[in-house]
Amino acid sequence: MKLIVNGEPREREAADIESLFRIEAEETGIETPQGIAIALNGQVVRRRDWAATPLADGDRVEIVRAMQGG
Amino acid sequence: MKLIVNGEPREREAADIESLFRIEAEETGIETPQGIAIALNGQVVRRRDWAATPLADGDRVEIVRAMQGG
Repeated sequence: MKLIVNGEPREREAADIESLFRIEAEETGIETPQGIAIALNGQVVRRRDWAATPLADGDRVEIVRAMQGG
Repeated sequence: MKLIVNGEPREREAADIESLFRIEAEETGIETPQGIAIALNGQVVRRRDWAATPLADGDRVEIVRAMQGG
């Protein structure tokens, strides 16, 4: 499906946020979801909901580095 | 300056994240920064750093709703 990941159009076969994260992590060398926040269409998705959050064509996903603490 | 705010190109006179947030909040009717997270070029900026974080032409800013707790 066509997604917009961090502002860039991407063709991704990812049914949910968890699988998208795995694809993006591999591509960008992110080792752990620790310290990573993901927002779907402007709404942060809690990590424990990643696998249960389905993606649809045209969704906008932001994968950002959230600093610990602060 | 030209910024990309939530994936949309925007012309904004905002020297830092705090002033950009005020402009966007007014436009979108957000009343409080509570529960809002902001990332600059893929990196979350802590709220207390908003005013001290300068913006430059072409910066990509994501203003997302972070659910409380979780």
